[in-house]
Amino acid sequence: MGFEIRRIEIERKTYKLVKTFRISLGAMSESTVIQIRLILNGGTVGLGEASPSFKISGEYLNSVETALRELSQEFIGEDVRNYRVLFDRIDEMFRTFPSAKSALQYAILDALTAEYGLTPFEFFGGAKRKIVSDKTVGIDDVNTMVEDAKNIKGEGFRTIKIKIDSVDFALDVVPKIADATGNIGYIVDANQALKPKEAVEVAEKLHSLGVNVLVLEQPVFKHDYDGLRFVRERSPFPVAADESLYTRYDAFKLARDGCVDVFNIKLMKSGLSDGMAIVEIARSAGITLMIGCMGESSLGITQSIDFAAGLGYFTYLDLDCPFLHAEDSKYRGYIRDGDELTVLDREEREKLKD
Amino acid sequence: MGFEIRRIEIERKTYKLVKTFRISLGAMSESTVIQIRLILNGGTVGLGEASPSFKISGEYLNSVETALRELSQEFIGEDVRNYRVLFDRIDEMFRTFPSAKSALQYAILDALTAEYGLTPFEFFGGAKRKIVSDKTVGIDDVNTMVEDAKNIKGEGFRTIKIKIDSVDFALDVVPKIADATGNIGYIVDANQALKPKEAVEVAEKLHSLGVNVLVLEQPVFKHDYDGLRFVRERSPFPVAADESLYTRYDAFKLARDGCVDVFNIKLMKSGLSDGMAIVEIARSAGITLMIGCMGESSLGITQSIDFAAGLGYFTYLDLDCPFLHAEDSKYRGYIRDGDELTVLDREEREKLKD
Repeated sequence: MGFEIRRIEIERKTYKLVKTFRISLGAMSESTVIQIRLILNGGTVGLGEASPSFKISGEYLNSVETALRELSQEFIGEDVRNYRVLFDRIDEMFRTFPSAKSALQYAILDALTAEYGLTPFEFFGGAKRKIVSDKTVGIDDVNTMVEDAKNIKGEGFRTIKIKIDSVDFALDVVPKIADATGNIGYIVDANQALKPKEAVEVAEKLHSLGVNVLVLEQPVFKHDYDGLRFVRERSPFPVAADESLYTRYDAFKLARDGCVDVFNIKLMKSGLSDGMAIVEIARSAGITLMIGCMGESSLGITQSIDFAAGLGYFTYLDLDCPFLHAEDSKYRGYIRDGDELTVLDREEREKLKD
Repeated sequence: MGFEIRRIEIERKTYKLVKTFRISLGAMSESTVIQIRLILNGGTVGLGEASPSFKISGEYLNSVETALRELSQEFIGEDVRNYRVLFDRIDEMFRTFPSAKSALQYAILDALTAEYGLTPFEFFGGAKRKIVSDKTVGIDDVNTMVEDAKNIKGEGFRTIKIKIDSVDFALDVVPKIADATGNIGYIVDANQALKPKEAVEVAEKLHSLGVNVLVLEQPVFKHDYDGLRFVRERSPFPVAADESLYTRYDAFKLARDGCVDVFNIKLMKSGLSDGMAIVEIARSAGITLMIGCMGESSLGITQSIDFAAGLGYFTYLDLDCPFLHAEDSKYRGYIRDGDELTVLDREEREKLKD
């Protein structure tokens, strides 16, 4: 047994996507992540991954990498059993790099739980060994999006997320996808592209057409909390905050002011520390929980799967980023069958750590 | 290794107090608690204790005991690694008996962590192995209270909690205690005895006299959230919610409406589940944390010590109830030296479980 951190290694990895993925804020054809390998005195290894998004979070990849490479060294010699104190220090040090928070906090927890022979999934509460994710259709021409959606349904997914960037486009593509895929259930994500009144228009029209919209996600500008509340009070569908929600402080204000029905937590925005706080605020204020991702490989998405499956409080799971990649990490803490993700136990995971 | 619950034993214990302890709501000369012994398949034991207060929480001892004895049997055969699901079920089943929530949730966590060779303190984050508690002066004649306070200071305590029940009494006894004990720092607790304007009067006068009041606790009726906010906005001292704060839902509303500066969490009011949520809400809303107790023995107070020391976020610790008892449980997860409480590790604890 040895709970002290002996070494932290940082490595950059790039994963090509199956096809270019476009949202209202921009397009990506590959995803570069920063992976952490944290080694305890006794040799136990904890892994973590940061998937910083410059477009979404303003996190500049090279800066995140530099910060992780240099600042993480301050944790050498620390005892991972004091994870609470370490998490708080990480919150302070990496507050402009939430993806780094997640990677380092998870690596600490992965090592700590490995040393005890359990997994972060069990640490979080072991609620649901199997969870179900949606899969996303990025912005493209309408016919291609309809084809993509049909393929996603063919792969076994029961919920499809649809990216949109304007009123006209949304009212064209969403009903067509619903028609072509049996109206199974859709998360419509504008990534801030609409004005509040436009968002209400989209929601009302899709509702009058009978489209089964489960969630209208981040319809308006991230700083426009009043706009979110305006949409929420008028939309027949639940309204979710995504880019408006990074920290526990954001969550408290959104809840206090009744701005949304749903919180979309992403560990790359919040780390484990703020992620946990947001869960508790949501449950205390009657807000539905969703979990999403940035551009993580299976290594990185394991963080969110452990978190969501271990806690069990998430109604909507959008953990599809590794499914959009043409390549993947060797390490993963889960197996996928259609849209079902099953958590692996510690023994199965250790075989995948070289 | 065996994580399944094989047996849960319930036992009632009565501890005599050193002297009758009086607050504005009533007096007690002994404390009856319900202790849980939860045994896993492999023989590992988890302990827990409920200290129900009829006067404060409306929990009727015999009913709590009956509920614990009968309903806890539904958990036989459950795997304690799924503690999140079990905690949620306990929240539902025992929602009128929060002291039972705490006892059963802690017993599950104690057994789970014992099986892994760690303690609930480490599970919560291992933040501070040593914490400092205040000690309380109950309501009595003024001279006796001054003597009691001097003795408490003599025992090494650096903060004294003073129970009061009226404006005149507070303005008489608090300055006298401050005079006699070097104005070291006081938590003034009215247990709802004042009207909002009376509470402001007490706060202003003690402030003008230079008394070092750290916290004015639960000055007004527990359901009068507007009254709490009225006092908070006018009091020169921080105002705390105690009896107003049981659940995560209470915490969210108190925070949303800006009612108090301080949350006094007691596991006997909230269990571990709501206790954790209240911590996260407080930290998200800039509210200071305090932890208190009902009538726990050292077995029961170990729950709160593990919680507070493990998390490390508590500014005020009022974990003195075993110090007011003439007898104590054999089991305790800590040692006391003056006002310092030091957490014991798993090996030291196991020696105390027969």
